[in-house]
Amino acid sequence: MRQVGLFVNLDKPQAAEVQRRLTRLLRDAGFDVVCAGVQRGSDVEAADDLDRLPLELLFVLGGDGTLLTAARRFAHHGVPLLGINIGHLGFLSEAEPAELEETVRRVVHKEYDLERRLMLEAAVYRHGQEVARLVALNDAGIAKGSFARMITVHAYVDGVFVDTYRGDGIIVSTPTGSTAYSLSCGGPIIVPHLHVLLITPICPHTLFSRPCVIADTQEVRLVVESTHDDVGLTVDGQVGVRMAVGDEVMVRRSPFDTTLVKWRDREFFSVLRAKLRNRESQ
Amino acid sequence: MRQVGLFVNLDKPQAAEVQRRLTRLLRDAGFDVVCAGVQRGSDVEAADDLDRLPLELLFVLGGDGTLLTAARRFAHHGVPLLGINIGHLGFLSEAEPAELEETVRRVVHKEYDLERRLMLEAAVYRHGQEVARLVALNDAGIAKGSFARMITVHAYVDGVFVDTYRGDGIIVSTPTGSTAYSLSCGGPIIVPHLHVLLITPICPHTLFSRPCVIADTQEVRLVVESTHDDVGLTVDGQVGVRMAVGDEVMVRRSPFDTTLVKWRDREFFSVLRAKLRNRESQ
Amino acid sequence: MRQVGLFVNLDKPQAAEVQRRLTRLLRDAGFDVVCAGVQRGSDVEAADDLDRLPLELLFVLGGDGTLLTAARRFAHHGVPLLGINIGHLGFLSEAEPAELEETVRRVVHKEYDLERRLMLEAAVYRHGQEVARLVALNDAGIAKGSFARMITVHAYVDGVFVDTYRGDGIIVSTPTGSTAYSLSCGGPIIVPHLHVLLITPICPHTLFSRPCVIADTQEVRLVVESTHDDVGLTVDGQVGVRMAVGDEVMVRRSPFDTTLVKWRDREFFSVLRAKLRNRESQ
Amino acid sequence: MRQVGLFVNLDKPQAAEVQRRLTRLLRDAGFDVVCAGVQRGSDVEAADDLDRLPLELLFVLGGDGTLLTAARRFAHHGVPLLGINIGHLGFLSEAEPAELEETVRRVVHKEYDLERRLMLEAAVYRHGQEVARLVALNDAGIAKGSFARMITVHAYVDGVFVDTYRGDGIIVSTPTGSTAYSLSCGGPIIVPHLHVLLITPICPHTLFSRPCVIADTQEVRLVVESTHDDVGLTVDGQVGVRMAVGDEVMVRRSPFDTTLVKWRDREFFSVLRAKLRNRESQ
Repeated sequence: MRQVGLFVNLDKPQAAEVQRRLTRLLRDAGFDVVCAGVQRGSDVEAADDLDRLPLELLFVLGGDGTLLTAARRFAHHGVPLLGINIGHLGFLSEAEPAELEETVRRVVHKEYDLERRLMLEAAVYRHGQEVARLVALNDAGIAKGSFARMITVHAYVDGVFVDTYRGDGIIVSTPTGSTAYSLSCGGPIIVPHLHVLLITPICPHTLFSRPCVIADTQEVRLVVESTHDDVGLTVDGQVGVRMAVGDEVMVRRSPFDTTLVKWRDREFFSVLRAKLRNRESQ
Repeated sequence: MRQVGLFVNLDKPQAAEVQRRLTRLLRDAGFDVVCAGVQRGSDVEAADDLDRLPLELLFVLGGDGTLLTAARRFAHHGVPLLGINIGHLGFLSEAEPAELEETVRRVVHKEYDLERRLMLEAAVYRHGQEVARLVALNDAGIAKGSFARMITVHAYVDGVFVDTYRGDGIIVSTPTGSTAYSLSCGGPIIVPHLHVLLITPICPHTLFSRPCVIADTQEVRLVVESTHDDVGLTVDGQVGVRMAVGDEVMVRRSPFDTTLVKWRDREFFSVLRAKLRNRESQ
Repeated sequence: MRQVGLFVNLDKPQAAEVQRRLTRLLRDAGFDVVCAGVQRGSDVEAADDLDRLPLELLFVLGGDGTLLTAARRFAHHGVPLLGINIGHLGFLSEAEPAELEETVRRVVHKEYDLERRLMLEAAVYRHGQEVARLVALNDAGIAKGSFARMITVHAYVDGVFVDTYRGDGIIVSTPTGSTAYSLSCGGPIIVPHLHVLLITPICPHTLFSRPCVIADTQEVRLVVESTHDDVGLTVDGQVGVRMAVGDEVMVRRSPFDTTLVKWRDREFFSVLRAKLRNRESQ
Repeated sequence: MRQVGLFVNLDKPQAAEVQRRLTRLLRDAGFDVVCAGVQRGSDVEAADDLDRLPLELLFVLGGDGTLLTAARRFAHHGVPLLGINIGHLGFLSEAEPAELEETVRRVVHKEYDLERRLMLEAAVYRHGQEVARLVALNDAGIAKGSFARMITVHAYVDGVFVDTYRGDGIIVSTPTGSTAYSLSCGGPIIVPHLHVLLITPICPHTLFSRPCVIADTQEVRLVVESTHDDVGLTVDGQVGVRMAVGDEVMVRRSPFDTTLVKWRDREFFSVLRAKLRNRESQ
């Protein structure tokens, strides 16, 4: 029996109703359906069951934020993610609640492509000891707090000194993340399948500090030199750890990719045009 | 007897020695000298005496940060400030410790210009009540904390809706502040004597959000619409208050100006060129 | 008898029909109507009659480009301009062809504001001799030709050296022009009534070259140092003169302003928002 | 007998003397030396002899501009290029005239790395016919002339519509060219060995038009829709062809690479830092 999962953002008002409709459609089509919900502030414990199951794919009901959460949570599992967009315009999500019948039909007949998106892993080292390790689909960024003005970050690529960035912080993005926070900081758009990483300074004080594209086989080391301690590392703008003066962050490509379900008739540039002209969501 | 004040940043290692040399030079020249020190985290209480005295001018020993602190602290007093730069390249400061003799000579003979710089006042309103009021020489900014990704701010000028800014926040700057944080956020340079204010979005998500120059008679109202509470108002990057969801900030020109002592042979654009080519300070 | 003029862009297909309808409405309302047409490449000779008449106002039928042409052509006359927008979304124009009845009604009862917009004059000097003098409502820019890569321009404000700009060129804009070409080059928005000028470098090679706002009483001197001769001065993106190596350009506020007719219920920021979200015109 | 070539920019005053010294050092070291000179406006005909010789490497005496010329001229030959920088700070050049002895010593013992840099080829089509084909090491750009304000270019990648760019034009760059003109237009830095191309709009009117990184296996098609004819295609900012309305340009990776001689102790980021802090050359 074919088995699929549903990962539902319970903070979205319409989520329960979409979940009910989708579950019924999938069961009618002969699928075994397993659900898990996520809520702001919770630890997604309910998702543990999904980990142990050989799911064919995982429906993600929510916005792009929910899909980012699912991507990090199930990175090691390898299950393809299919975003059902609830709320604002979705960029990573592929289908709308109004299209559930057509969505299930395509899934039944496997009328879709699988697109692999590289992910990051960021590890924080304090006095030589790893104190945190996070995974990201969009980006890993070091940023100052709202009351601090400027932080200083020394950046190295494969051990070679790149530059010292003074400003609000620095982001390392995947191609997927190039259209997220990095874009607001002046970074370029990178088509999703490229094997590169992107380093983008946030409001750099030194005007010649510019976004830089490197290979995804290269490793970024960021050393925070700062006179204050309101500095944090955040992944995908969602999960963060507070950093101490002298902490180092290593960012490299994760051994795990996210696999996205993509319709064949919906391509990157047309979705991008819609998004850039009306950047309301994400 | 001519009377001057010294406002000394005691966190700077060389400050005590420069203070001693300057005091002796001034007393030898017949001035009555009154000192006050400031330290990170303290409330500059020692400066209270200076408030009551009819000072001819106030020497500020420190970096640009110290001068900003002095400008806010003595805004109501009206005493002209003369920055003696200790440490990094100063932009607001006019003299170096190596030039103390020449500095005193110019002060004795009043061989300097007085340059008025407009200031801001920013008031925070919660449920219609003013809960904080701050003054600024450079800028007043609303910014998200290091773990929050995006805040939404609705901006109005003289009651007319300007736009909704999504991103890391928004800054209102004076011409003086145009070369500080606003510049890192993509704002223009404004020559110091213009009667204008500058609104600059910080890493705007909406790519058509751009810096905007308005008159210094216009009033900016910023309404924070946010789903989280890690948002702060900061003036000059130095003093801040935490904001709550729904708080409003009114920013307008302060009734007080800062008066800076300026040498006649040192003009804005040459200082600016040096600063932009080597932005280490401020 | 009240007398108005019509200045018509004959290159616009619908212009003749709008001209006919508007003329009839105005005559029915008791106005004496005098017309002049302009065509691409022609010298607007037919407009000479309008110069000698004491017009109450001048209707400009065309796009923003036509209004810029009319502004330069009638700057010395002082007649208020009322743009009737034919074609794309107009930014300077106030009315649409569908609103002709209402437009005439407002003009009859003088239900409008007059808004003064400062203009520029740019003079080219060769070996100390003035060889050209142009007026502009938006901007005066020095730019390289399509086959030249980089030009070098030394800029002075009131005789004081500002900086040397290497790149595609440099623009001096009015507040009106701040939302035109300068915006594409990274310049700020300036509300229309401010008494300032804006200097914006075009694709500067030196990354610390930034837009600069100065007073409208200040004078900009631009000295082109270039190893090639494919360099031109252009006003409002419409009229240009070829420059020679060593030529100097003086840009200052024009003694003439443009006066625009503005409806009381249509304010700057709402027009700006529409424009920035859909920059198709101008 | 080992054979090397010298490609000399005769417009540089010191070129003849450096050529003489280098030739003597190479001959003393046992090399057969063949020279060709290039002058502005000439067609480098003297270089034809070099084409037929199995050169071990080609010394390029001049600035980065000379090296770009040599790269295009000898792309099909495959000979490694070693730039001897005469004049301004060189970015592509590896050695200074003061280091000729050490340079020859390294060449004798082959103490260097060879770095391959991908190149572009750009073909212009008119009514379906190819009317020009150019090769580039840095970039191929379509730009308006100095008197035209705005051109419209429709861009496609592998046949898929990307966007319509309105503004001064558009550039397609190699990683090598990312630090040249594209950087002045807001493009990112790309480390040299990546297999990507970069599309950068020049002063885009539409503020959401952003630089875009694609794979070097992808093909860019640019269709110029323009109401005027002052539009040109330029490669490396050096060689151009005038374009007609409706012309199409295809840009793709060239089958030929440029091979650069690189010292082992001189790495990309340190050269980049020096360049960005003092962008005088290229």
